Amino acid sequence: MAGRVYIVGAGATKVGEHWDRSLRELAVEALLSAVKDAGIDKRDVEALYVGNMMSGMLQGQEHLGALVATWAGIPGAAACKIEAACGSGGVAVHQAYLAVASGLYDCVAVVGVEKMTDALPSDASAALATAEDQEYVVFTGATFVSLNALLYRLYLDRYGVKQEKVAAFPVHCHKMAVNNPYAQFRRAVTLEEVMASPLVADPLRLLECAPIGDGAAALILCSERYLKRNPRDELVEVAGTAVATDVLSAHERRDPLAVAALRRAVEAATRRAGVEVADIDVLEVHDAFSILGVLSLEARGEGWRLVEEGQLEPGGKIPTNTMGGLKARGHPVGATGVYQVFDLVVQLRGEAGANQVEGAELGMAQNFGGVASTVAVNVLRRAR
Amino acid sequence: MAGRVYIVGAGATKVGEHWDRSLRELAVEALLSAVKDAGIDKRDVEALYVGNMMSGMLQGQEHLGALVATWAGIPGAAACKIEAACGSGGVAVHQAYLAVASGLYDCVAVVGVEKMTDALPSDASAALATAEDQEYVVFTGATFVSLNALLYRLYLDRYGVKQEKVAAFPVHCHKMAVNNPYAQFRRAVTLEEVMASPLVADPLRLLECAPIGDGAAALILCSERYLKRNPRDELVEVAGTAVATDVLSAHERRDPLAVAALRRAVEAATRRAGVEVADIDVLEVHDAFSILGVLSLEARGEGWRLVEEGQLEPGGKIPTNTMGGLKARGHPVGATGVYQVFDLVVQLRGEAGANQVEGAELGMAQNFGGVASTVAVNVLRRAR
Repeated sequence: MAGRVYIVGAGATKVGEHWDRSLRELAVEALLSAVKDAGIDKRDVEALYVGNMMSGMLQGQEHLGALVATWAGIPGAAACKIEAACGSGGVAVHQAYLAVASGLYDCVAVVGVEKMTDALPSDASAALATAEDQEYVVFTGATFVSLNALLYRLYLDRYGVKQEKVAAFPVHCHKMAVNNPYAQFRRAVTLEEVMASPLVADPLRLLECAPIGDGAAALILCSERYLKRNPRDELVEVAGTAVATDVLSAHERRDPLAVAALRRAVEAATRRAGVEVADIDVLEVHDAFSILGVLSLEARGEGWRLVEEGQLEPGGKIPTNTMGGLKARGHPVGATGVYQVFDLVVQLRGEAGANQVEGAELGMAQNFGGVASTVAVNVLRRAR
Repeated sequence: MAGRVYIVGAGATKVGEHWDRSLRELAVEALLSAVKDAGIDKRDVEALYVGNMMSGMLQGQEHLGALVATWAGIPGAAACKIEAACGSGGVAVHQAYLAVASGLYDCVAVVGVEKMTDALPSDASAALATAEDQEYVVFTGATFVSLNALLYRLYLDRYGVKQEKVAAFPVHCHKMAVNNPYAQFRRAVTLEEVMASPLVADPLRLLECAPIGDGAAALILCSERYLKRNPRDELVEVAGTAVATDVLSAHERRDPLAVAALRRAVEAATRRAGVEVADIDVLEVHDAFSILGVLSLEARGEGWRLVEEGQLEPGGKIPTNTMGGLKARGHPVGATGVYQVFDLVVQLRGEAGANQVEGAELGMAQNFGGVASTVAVNVLRRAR
């Protein structure tokens, strides 16, 4: 089997509306910040994976691998862009892991980046819709908001749950984000505010939807061999990683609420890590919409109870989205999966401040592309 | 070091203007053809890499990993899209290699696909231009034709070579493609025809430019472990593989004619394969434009001599683009790097018919993204 793979550096920009900064500037800032955090010479970076979904459509810019390598001052690195819709970042982490585990590379960088605010809002929605089937679904006018609204309605009807139970998820996320300097929304919201916010696609309310934003997050992964030459104290291991897909369109699945790709990816990642789901100390779920957050916690209509009981907070049964999640930290699409891992690294290093999960040893990040059509799961272990 | 990685299946569609078939149909046809060629159960495919550049811009369709997995009947596979401009296909092969070499996957598929004719011609040119720097180069009106014309002019001036010497490259490619059933242009052209064809960007003539086209090519890669359970006679090994980048824009390089990323990638791939460049029996170069074909052969102004002497033909010193290359087999951008490997597999298996390079043991494919800003080099060895 493959050698161990470690994360030795992590960096990010604040998520927000960066009208004054371009996609490349965000990516380079995050990458150099991760390099600095790792304390390495950036010329050690042999390969670069850029997680991004929409740069072609929103910036008229593809070829982000060579672009970011050039502007970060590491031209020469083996570089490419990884695209798996909103799961691009998590899948990029998976590819970076494979690059190191293969033995061909000893030091690899991952950058997740998306720049969504410098396009017209209608452009961003249209670009996001390309994650679904253009010929059979999108042409009907479907958007991701409307598709998730269908899941939400099905969930409420099937399990007889009141919407307020699900809508409590974003309340939790906003509460967590108050203490996260990288978060897009550092303010709390009440359940009443969520329920009173505008209806976007019945039953989804505005404050149940992750925002549009810009941002970049980056990681430095390395091999044991590299680590021997460049020892460091703070260490996080990528203990297990998996990617799984499902039938692209949720309406063609036997049970649209089953999130089968999530189950498969979690099973594979925990098996590879040699751990049980119950061992996870801190969890990042893909709450692009409140319903996805709740479904990720548990797919039998009971996930909302964990929210209600406060079990997602530090100190709870399963601390989740402790830095604000997609809803409040923000969801710059192709960057999100890398932000999730960044947030876990912060927790596993004990640097989460007021939101610290005491003694956190194991973390899991779940990143979705489409309506859980692609799922990347990365399991991290504190290894110092 | 990593275990050995083999190519056990290869498939492709004819390159051409497939007005009657969509991107997904082309991808699925090539993938299932490779599965059939490998003689495996498609459900064995654990991961899928889709090399593609422009589907977001030209088809309004991203998330090709899950899309192709779904339509090929292998939902569940770990799937994503790899983008590195025109080098997407070659880089996808590299990623598939890493996936197997890592030990996490035993059977992996690569599909390169591009659908260029179902968009307005102006759209395809604009989409292709996103491989260059949008903010500093493309906004001036630069296209890949004009950028390569600048290189061409520099080459002719610096080395005092007559254009006819370089323009002989496409003549060779068209001659080879006559015997390739997958080629877009199965007809010979004369040097006089090339030189009399319309001027596209001085000095580049139309018949010196690879065409726009649609197509898909696919490969099945597997581990030694998988091979033990599923033995087969015809075997090709991925002996060495490398990706390198250069400063994105050629005009910012110390020497725009140096193709430094090609040199780096060739050096790394041959080192990993344990072979010398002189050992290569059959070569695929990235002749998107005649000048790139000649530069790839040798960067000191002498590459054209090999063309003139007929050394690129089967039986010559270095048989090159023996199935027609980008110019005549065709250049469906994100698929090209996979077509190159497909063509090498045909040669190494001894199935190239009238174009067979006798006793071919070692092949090399060179795939460029942008003006050699990203270069993927894959070295294949006959292993039966």
